[in-house]
Amino acid sequence: MNGIKVAVLGATGMIGQRFIQLLEGHPLFEIEGLFASERSDGKRVSEVLKVKDYQFDRETLSTEICQIDIEDISERCRVAFSGLPAGIAKDIEQSLAEQGVAVFSNASSHRMREDVPVLIPEVNPDHLDMVVAQSTYPGGGYIVTNANCSATGIALPLKALDDAFELEMVCVSTYQAVSGAGYPGVSSLDILGNILPHIKSEEEKMEAEIIKMLGTLENGRVRSANFDMLANCARVPVADGHLESLTMTFKGEPEIKEVSSTLSEFRSDPQRLRLPTAPLQPIIVREEIDRPQPLLDAHAGEPERARGMAVTVGRLRKKDRYYKAFALSHNTLRGGAGGSVLNAELAVEKGHLR
Amino acid sequence: MNGIKVAVLGATGMIGQRFIQLLEGHPLFEIEGLFASERSDGKRVSEVLKVKDYQFDRETLSTEICQIDIEDISERCRVAFSGLPAGIAKDIEQSLAEQGVAVFSNASSHRMREDVPVLIPEVNPDHLDMVVAQSTYPGGGYIVTNANCSATGIALPLKALDDAFELEMVCVSTYQAVSGAGYPGVSSLDILGNILPHIKSEEEKMEAEIIKMLGTLENGRVRSANFDMLANCARVPVADGHLESLTMTFKGEPEIKEVSSTLSEFRSDPQRLRLPTAPLQPIIVREEIDRPQPLLDAHAGEPERARGMAVTVGRLRKKDRYYKAFALSHNTLRGGAGGSVLNAELAVEKGHLR
Amino acid sequence: MNGIKVAVLGATGMIGQRFIQLLEGHPLFEIEGLFASERSDGKRVSEVLKVKDYQFDRETLSTEICQIDIEDISERCRVAFSGLPAGIAKDIEQSLAEQGVAVFSNASSHRMREDVPVLIPEVNPDHLDMVVAQSTYPGGGYIVTNANCSATGIALPLKALDDAFELEMVCVSTYQAVSGAGYPGVSSLDILGNILPHIKSEEEKMEAEIIKMLGTLENGRVRSANFDMLANCARVPVADGHLESLTMTFKGEPEIKEVSSTLSEFRSDPQRLRLPTAPLQPIIVREEIDRPQPLLDAHAGEPERARGMAVTVGRLRKKDRYYKAFALSHNTLRGGAGGSVLNAELAVEKGHLR
Amino acid sequence: MNGIKVAVLGATGMIGQRFIQLLEGHPLFEIEGLFASERSDGKRVSEVLKVKDYQFDRETLSTEICQIDIEDISERCRVAFSGLPAGIAKDIEQSLAEQGVAVFSNASSHRMREDVPVLIPEVNPDHLDMVVAQSTYPGGGYIVTNANCSATGIALPLKALDDAFELEMVCVSTYQAVSGAGYPGVSSLDILGNILPHIKSEEEKMEAEIIKMLGTLENGRVRSANFDMLANCARVPVADGHLESLTMTFKGEPEIKEVSSTLSEFRSDPQRLRLPTAPLQPIIVREEIDRPQPLLDAHAGEPERARGMAVTVGRLRKKDRYYKAFALSHNTLRGGAGGSVLNAELAVEKGHLR
Repeated sequence: MNGIKVAVLGATGMIGQRFIQLLEGHPLFEIEGLFASERSDGKRVSEVLKVKDYQFDRETLSTEICQIDIEDISERCRVAFSGLPAGIAKDIEQSLAEQGVAVFSNASSHRMREDVPVLIPEVNPDHLDMVVAQSTYPGGGYIVTNANCSATGIALPLKALDDAFELEMVCVSTYQAVSGAGYPGVSSLDILGNILPHIKSEEEKMEAEIIKMLGTLENGRVRSANFDMLANCARVPVADGHLESLTMTFKGEPEIKEVSSTLSEFRSDPQRLRLPTAPLQPIIVREEIDRPQPLLDAHAGEPERARGMAVTVGRLRKKDRYYKAFALSHNTLRGGAGGSVLNAELAVEKGHLR
Repeated sequence: MNGIKVAVLGATGMIGQRFIQLLEGHPLFEIEGLFASERSDGKRVSEVLKVKDYQFDRETLSTEICQIDIEDISERCRVAFSGLPAGIAKDIEQSLAEQGVAVFSNASSHRMREDVPVLIPEVNPDHLDMVVAQSTYPGGGYIVTNANCSATGIALPLKALDDAFELEMVCVSTYQAVSGAGYPGVSSLDILGNILPHIKSEEEKMEAEIIKMLGTLENGRVRSANFDMLANCARVPVADGHLESLTMTFKGEPEIKEVSSTLSEFRSDPQRLRLPTAPLQPIIVREEIDRPQPLLDAHAGEPERARGMAVTVGRLRKKDRYYKAFALSHNTLRGGAGGSVLNAELAVEKGHLR
Repeated sequence: MNGIKVAVLGATGMIGQRFIQLLEGHPLFEIEGLFASERSDGKRVSEVLKVKDYQFDRETLSTEICQIDIEDISERCRVAFSGLPAGIAKDIEQSLAEQGVAVFSNASSHRMREDVPVLIPEVNPDHLDMVVAQSTYPGGGYIVTNANCSATGIALPLKALDDAFELEMVCVSTYQAVSGAGYPGVSSLDILGNILPHIKSEEEKMEAEIIKMLGTLENGRVRSANFDMLANCARVPVADGHLESLTMTFKGEPEIKEVSSTLSEFRSDPQRLRLPTAPLQPIIVREEIDRPQPLLDAHAGEPERARGMAVTVGRLRKKDRYYKAFALSHNTLRGGAGGSVLNAELAVEKGHLR
Repeated sequence: MNGIKVAVLGATGMIGQRFIQLLEGHPLFEIEGLFASERSDGKRVSEVLKVKDYQFDRETLSTEICQIDIEDISERCRVAFSGLPAGIAKDIEQSLAEQGVAVFSNASSHRMREDVPVLIPEVNPDHLDMVVAQSTYPGGGYIVTNANCSATGIALPLKALDDAFELEMVCVSTYQAVSGAGYPGVSSLDILGNILPHIKSEEEKMEAEIIKMLGTLENGRVRSANFDMLANCARVPVADGHLESLTMTFKGEPEIKEVSSTLSEFRSDPQRLRLPTAPLQPIIVREEIDRPQPLLDAHAGEPERARGMAVTVGRLRKKDRYYKAFALSHNTLRGGAGGSVLNAELAVEKGHLR
């Protein structure tokens, strides 16, 4: 192995372990160290296992997790994948960037900064150029964030539809999985047989991030997109996979079959560049009457390395001038660790990780 | 006891047994017989128990369920409460009405007929007058339907808001409990840890029934309301209580506190007439950040007899000219049997059950 | 009101709030103050609500929770009901007892002390006399513990059967509800669609406590019962109600109908003394093929005040010389706060709370 | 492909589709046709999908399911894998055997027949010889059954332990997944947040089948094993994976580490013969404090083709002369379709499928 050396931050948590999963056998990156900020210093992955549907390599399971040490990481690693909780992510990520590390973060701390891109390679690959402007960081350090998990799931279809038909209004209601809250996250007493109609700051994040990502880059800064974006967010008793209902209007009034083909034929930079974690078809449109479903569609995506990276859209309907659909994506893969890994792959390809 | 004699149809099912629950000790009605269309002839209620959160009287539990016999029912009963499945409800309810029985039905079969009201006493009490026009039925027979369970839950707040601020557009997404599908209804293999983004005909029913109920009566026929009504429906792993997200625009642009007080101060005929099953406050507005929730709010409503008859609204928000909220109602009480019992109470009060 | 003044310790938690529920309108006790050990000082009950299936009085909901102050409590209260976590319960309960407060505790800290009874009034009411021997505490202070929630659920039927047929061996496997782990307790990521075959120290507690409670008092000390007691404990995705399977052998070999009548006819001191929270029939035997079930039977018990205080036994079977059954009890009522309230009622009746 | 031609019966159901999953790319067998007894004639697999955690080949998904035709099947297929419901399995399987088809059945209909083996290749491979005695069937027809899903899960560890230490008594309590009841199977209204302490005939099957499988073959008939076998069965809200608690006594009194090594070192004919679907290590012993769990361990087993075919045992404990453990197995793979496929592989190897 001779890949780019990477650190995984937050390796005891759900997102951190999804990073590890995706980096096992990765063609470009090589895990140099696993880190966490807490009392887990010295614990092995097997002792703090969070991901339940993936079999880690034996070697991974016996790897020790170390305490975060900025000096140590910046000396050994070119890249840091951060699954840190927002509370502590801000300073650590900033320090790493200042020490020359390229940080690909799942945390929300830096997302709305003017000089930091909220990047989804299929949606706004050009926004990656904003890292050039993060010139205060010497030695190639910078911060790239992925979007909030529930924003990611709809950003791909909204991008495809906005390009084709110009969005006027988007109403989204979410059915979000508990893994989105991390571990231990949601108490079983609150969610067994129940729905929680509130996720702290989630609606604000969705609305702001979608508008930012679908905006245009002008002089190194993002000019927000110009449509009405309304979100209602709720937590449901599902392990993985955020389902979201969409009601939309466009400037144009396309046929449903045009909407459908626009979505399923959507391709972007990751597909053209054949990035390792990019799904061949980023948006899968299902014709069945009752899809997408979390249990059936959360892991959509081909090839094998891109499982969980495709967004599934179904139940396309038109009523008067309104368009309705359901979208589903894996919140800790496409909407979490997978998004950041794809961002880093794009950075390699675009020459930002020399 | 000396109440109006009533039959309960579909007494082996979930809605039928909610009827029985609400009729135990009712001040106006007296159960004359329990009926079902199937092979349950002769079975006792205790052997086919569906309702799990209510303790029936011993006498009720040992009551036998008989096969439906139109002649027998029409001779013994002035009223029939129907919890029959839509497939068989149509003909049986029609036959009973023709034999002079006032049928209060939870089935959808007759809802969109021009001469049949979809009645929620707080929303469109005047629509009850449509039964006078069902003149083909002699001897006081007629059919009154309640609304679909998911339409009911939002009809009350939408009525209050439409009266005050004139609705332009309503986007609703539902989080519907499994009891709405009857028994056995949804397979556990489909819903455990999953969401089903499709309920047969539900969106069409919601959109059509809301527009009909909020319409105005002109010459004995309903003129539909005139706003955009869009629904996305999904089933969630919750036992009882339909949660629904709302995004709305109005002709006016009220303050959130006006919206809130309009909802919580809403009163209508059932409250003025002190109908036995009417909640004192039909719409409860919660200020907490994470309400309404099915586990906490499905049984809202006072007094005791009206538990599960109030609609709870929470998370009132305004963004630009859009208004957002979550609403919750008990789908087999307010949205099912309770709705029909309230309809029958209104009919007594308005002189249609002499 | 003129009841005995009581403090509720741990009022922010699940057990503490079950205490509050049971003490609303109690004929003997009057809540003097709500206490918790943490940062909840000054919070109102409504802000830290844990119990979801009970409507607290408005006055209760607006009551402030204070920080625990031994002096203050011992001056104002004759009794303390403790729902404190085991970690901090030990010292606080000891200090209160030393200051003359009668502590009725749900914590395990003092259960296996030689001079402290593990008390279930139907099972070992004479063990209450052990408090006389806690003579180091002046002013009427002492500690009485209730049993572990899973031990309580089977202690009643085992007591009835041991008295009648002499137990030789008991194999129990538990299906324990998540509320037994307190709040937030079990992470939804661990229990949604899953079973956890381990609950810390639970099997040891069950085995030791059953043997102690069914033992005999000799010179103020308990001589343990003499049968084989084996427990396997697991957590299941159920909110309330511990289900437990039993396989037993006796010295005798009774008919199943004798076993059944022994259980359903079992009465003890709480019934004879008509204690307010005592169920009229402490063990309910169900003949249906699929009972007891948590959803249907957790709240068994009459009268109203004793709901959740009866144990339900079903599926009595005999194979060769083995007897099999399932038992169910409400883990935070009978197996938690309700057990301690019943203990205190017995203490009043026996003159230990003058 | 040039494998033995096989029919899959019950291809619309859960077990039938697990058969299809295991037969995709199988080195010995080739699917010749998919059959079901019902109105699914002509439906494609994609339209009646039941298995949710496996991605079928596109070709499989578009395969049509035909109505069962004994003549047609017996002409085209040497083997039939039956996932038929017990009600109709009996006659169809018998007819196929009479027509010369080797039937490997998951149904219980023929299990307790004197001339039919209940076969688990690791447990009683010699019982396969019983098919020779099924001489009434010409042309190589016979019936081999696999064991009940909950019996299978413990048969492997019990066999290993009985051989080493001689079982005296086994108490088992089950935590059974809903997929064991087929589709639609258990109503969500009955199992969401609930436990059902009864599965029709399950305890009787477990007790009888374990005793039969661990018995010895004498003159072509099974002489039952001679230990006490007691079962309590319950259904839990889990999709896949039966967890079972065990309490056992032996003639000997081994150390826990002997018990552990006896289990983990257990190998049998399938391993020696390297059958394609045999797990390299049939019994995996976990040392962690909280394993096995359905979500983590249901799919245990290597290599890839044997995923879900290993039994996981954990929490080995000794108290006095009693031994306690939890065992887990995948109920529709090891305890269902996988068991029958392994049986057929053994039949090939032993020359019963020429």
